[in-house]
Amino acid sequence: MNYADRLQAAVDAKGNACLVGLDPHLDLLPAEFESARDTGRPRAERAAALADFACEVIDVVADRVPAVKPQSAFFEVFGSDGVRAWERVVAAARAAGLIVIGDVKRGDIASTAAAYARAFLDPAAAGAEHVCDAVTINPYLGADSVTPFLAACRAFDAGVYVLVRTSNPGSADFQRHGEPELSHLVARRVHEWGAELVGECGLSSVGAVVGATHARELRSFREAMPRTPFLLPGFGAQGAGAAELVDAFLPPPSPGGAIVNSSRGITFAWRRLEFADLDWKTAASRALDEMIAELAPVHR
Amino acid sequence: MNYADRLQAAVDAKGNACLVGLDPHLDLLPAEFESARDTGRPRAERAAALADFACEVIDVVADRVPAVKPQSAFFEVFGSDGVRAWERVVAAARAAGLIVIGDVKRGDIASTAAAYARAFLDPAAAGAEHVCDAVTINPYLGADSVTPFLAACRAFDAGVYVLVRTSNPGSADFQRHGEPELSHLVARRVHEWGAELVGECGLSSVGAVVGATHARELRSFREAMPRTPFLLPGFGAQGAGAAELVDAFLPPPSPGGAIVNSSRGITFAWRRLEFADLDWKTAASRALDEMIAELAPVHR
Repeated sequence: MNYADRLQAAVDAKGNACLVGLDPHLDLLPAEFESARDTGRPRAERAAALADFACEVIDVVADRVPAVKPQSAFFEVFGSDGVRAWERVVAAARAAGLIVIGDVKRGDIASTAAAYARAFLDPAAAGAEHVCDAVTINPYLGADSVTPFLAACRAFDAGVYVLVRTSNPGSADFQRHGEPELSHLVARRVHEWGAELVGECGLSSVGAVVGATHARELRSFREAMPRTPFLLPGFGAQGAGAAELVDAFLPPPSPGGAIVNSSRGITFAWRRLEFADLDWKTAASRALDEMIAELAPVHR
Repeated sequence: MNYADRLQAAVDAKGNACLVGLDPHLDLLPAEFESARDTGRPRAERAAALADFACEVIDVVADRVPAVKPQSAFFEVFGSDGVRAWERVVAAARAAGLIVIGDVKRGDIASTAAAYARAFLDPAAAGAEHVCDAVTINPYLGADSVTPFLAACRAFDAGVYVLVRTSNPGSADFQRHGEPELSHLVARRVHEWGAELVGECGLSSVGAVVGATHARELRSFREAMPRTPFLLPGFGAQGAGAAELVDAFLPPPSPGGAIVNSSRGITFAWRRLEFADLDWKTAASRALDEMIAELAPVHR
């Protein structure tokens, strides 16, 4: 089943378009995962603590959200032990029935890109239980660096999200360069790349990462990519509010067309002053309820 | 000791600027590493065969070249087992006294980029024996995605090579966009980023990846980045010859200023018709001799 259709079915089933980012940042982990920070412990033990944390987050959110987005960098910090922890997290999310979007931002040429696509999307390479439903990719190297991922989307009913306009302040440095701005040129190509991978829901398996922090640009990106599922980072911790995202969604009766990511806003909600009396899981759960409620008016 | 100085010392010691890429592409491995392709074998065993191959390449070339460049994607194909194999290869190259440039092309924002920098460059995270001397990074996300790598260069005497103009045909899609062309805008920033990290040799630890396939652009890139060490992919298998690279090097009495990568041209030289009678190691060794001889007139 086409990735866009699977994602849409998951969004429909859960009734919201919330994506929980799993970014087990060492310095921000709750005290009970302190062992991850303990440089005196074996690396495998520290990595296991990261996976424990992420798996507990999955337990907290799995019944309410359609998808999670583990961030590879925080696992890779512990080398092969970290990647083993990553595999455990991906497997746990899949077992919980969640769509897994691997935030890996890979990009390379030809057969090297094909190797990355296999690494994350091919059940025969990664192992069926560790495979992601979709990954994020970086377009800087051009169309021939994207093509192998499109082939993987076809072969494995997977998805990709191409970085178009990222949520960080520095994204303007290069993504706004030129006329049209580079990000808009990339957007046009994303629309073209997705043409062959449109599912029954009308959306493609080729998605775009567009920062929720660029509210005024969302409409033009949506116009340039009418069949593209958007992944919107930057909600919550990075400052974007729900009302600003309305242009990213498709109007009814089309399906929603976008998923909104919050990472630290959910997983590290226990650090918020007003949640000071709550344990970290309850804080995460409350923060997720808030996010679902806040997004309800704009989703559909 | 500053990365640029270490690299230059290694280039001086070996008397050439050849960089051997370790790209253990499954489909191209010699028959004796057949087990890597055998889908019936455990993943760990297949991954170990990749590492065996790469380590044998290291044995063949270590006495003649200053540096090697393992390509992460081909290891990641086997998940955490593949990353364990990667670690063994990095450790073997370091033990052989080689500079190790991890071809990982990572790029992400803020604390996520910092996590990638730690993963590959911080001995306390990666493990001292697995750490790379330098990594390749992707600039699409902007300056704030590069800053954490610059901090790592300072903290760990490491280096980075920013993708400026890659060697693939599709690189023109986005890297040539705008006026000035995006790659030239990136080049200016690479020059600025490197200012704080200039070593005694006059070169910076902040390098640039500039495809050897773009011979006519090398001079203007060199002018824009006079203190930047270049990593030139695309020699050999991708079609560039030595004479075309002269503009990438700095004129005497300055140090060389560039290293030239060949991956398949060396490691898979046994597939060349004229080497059909040779075992794969002898073929690799001969191909390396050819490369060193061919580059001798342009290096310095």
